[in-house]
Amino acid sequence: MLRNIKLVLAYDGTDFAGWQVQPSAATIQGTLASAIGRVTGEIVLPQGSGRTDAGVHAHRQVASFCTNSPIPVKNIAKALNDTMPPSIRVLSAQEESLEFHARKSALAKTYVYRVYRAGICPPFLARYVWHYPYQLDLSPMQQAAAEIVGEHDFTSFAAVDPEHGKDEPLSSVRRIFSSAWRSEGDEWAYTVRGNGFLHHMVRNLVGTFVLVGKGTIRPEATRQILDARKRSAAGATAPASGLFLADVEY
Amino acid sequence: MLRNIKLVLAYDGTDFAGWQVQPSAATIQGTLASAIGRVTGEIVLPQGSGRTDAGVHAHRQVASFCTNSPIPVKNIAKALNDTMPPSIRVLSAQEESLEFHARKSALAKTYVYRVYRAGICPPFLARYVWHYPYQLDLSPMQQAAAEIVGEHDFTSFAAVDPEHGKDEPLSSVRRIFSSAWRSEGDEWAYTVRGNGFLHHMVRNLVGTFVLVGKGTIRPEATRQILDARKRSAAGATAPASGLFLADVEY
Repeated sequence: MLRNIKLVLAYDGTDFAGWQVQPSAATIQGTLASAIGRVTGEIVLPQGSGRTDAGVHAHRQVASFCTNSPIPVKNIAKALNDTMPPSIRVLSAQEESLEFHARKSALAKTYVYRVYRAGICPPFLARYVWHYPYQLDLSPMQQAAAEIVGEHDFTSFAAVDPEHGKDEPLSSVRRIFSSAWRSEGDEWAYTVRGNGFLHHMVRNLVGTFVLVGKGTIRPEATRQILDARKRSAAGATAPASGLFLADVEY
Repeated sequence: MLRNIKLVLAYDGTDFAGWQVQPSAATIQGTLASAIGRVTGEIVLPQGSGRTDAGVHAHRQVASFCTNSPIPVKNIAKALNDTMPPSIRVLSAQEESLEFHARKSALAKTYVYRVYRAGICPPFLARYVWHYPYQLDLSPMQQAAAEIVGEHDFTSFAAVDPEHGKDEPLSSVRRIFSSAWRSEGDEWAYTVRGNGFLHHMVRNLVGTFVLVGKGTIRPEATRQILDARKRSAAGATAPASGLFLADVEY
């Protein structure tokens, strides 16, 4: 009997060429597909809630796949983990209705971007942060972050996506529910929750907020950048290492 | 004028073939020697407080090297860090007397060994712990750890060291100042401080304490293992990933 299985995954993206399967590079989707193949005996391509770029991590990514295999759902997480490298873990597996789709059913996603501020970055953090030890002012960055809450056209913060799926929405309008910076010791973290994100959107937002923190642009300019609707209006793309997909809600 | 420079280093040992320089593998000592060469223009081999094995990490390792370069000591850490991968960091550099020797002058060293106990190991911890989710009893492990405090012949816990230096002591007698397990959430950590450690000694102690925690041997057997003075009396070598050189005292 066909079952639809929802997986919650965590991964260290450093050594992967991103989520999406590629013929000659290790990817999260490809590694997971091989593991599912070994466990179920079936060739399936699991669907993720969205693609993550090379080097981007996940605390909670969601993927789903359909299977006819009789394996009990309670055994799936361990069986997959036993065949995958320690850098990808299945945190849980559960059966969903056949209508459930990891991307299309998602109502909200949360990303966290970590910036390490001290002069020397501990080697155990280097894979998981953007090391930025230069002068930055947090308060205008918080102000700029607040400017994007609500429904906006995020064209200025979107890279052209060469792998945009045929069935994915073409609109660049997204609703942001919350967007804020907080600092804790030597680390500054940006957390953003929204109904969807364009390609490179969080990293482009962070790159722009850093321009605000440096004083290159004023926080209020964030609105003008949104209104410009062109990529060149915003800041550079922040490095992948600091970005974590933190949650997907259904 | 010849100066003797003391460096405090931190490193993620996962992607290195240990401390000691090798002709065709990336090592900590070799990477540091290249960086010193680029910064001072001199060919020197920095001396470490001791070798760490492939995959072993350091929160605080100490190395020293002599140089005639005029570079101000306050610039050395940044200059070296700018030429090394983020997995090795110089935390500080200071001038010492010419008599100072990173290994021979060391009075005490502290190692920490981290064991992750929950069923699924987060991918961001996998490089820095031994994932051991099986049944273990902490109390007898604490008892066994206490048994090694004091001066003992640690032959049973020492691997034959193929790279034993000609000027290093041949005796297997070491003094342990403290040796204890503590648990914090899903992590159990063993901390041991002593005047010196033999090759693989901490990992062999941990492997033996785990046998005690499983109930395979009683905690009091630790003394008999010491007395046996043969490697086969003790447990297996615990994985390198969980081990950190935490401090070196002078």
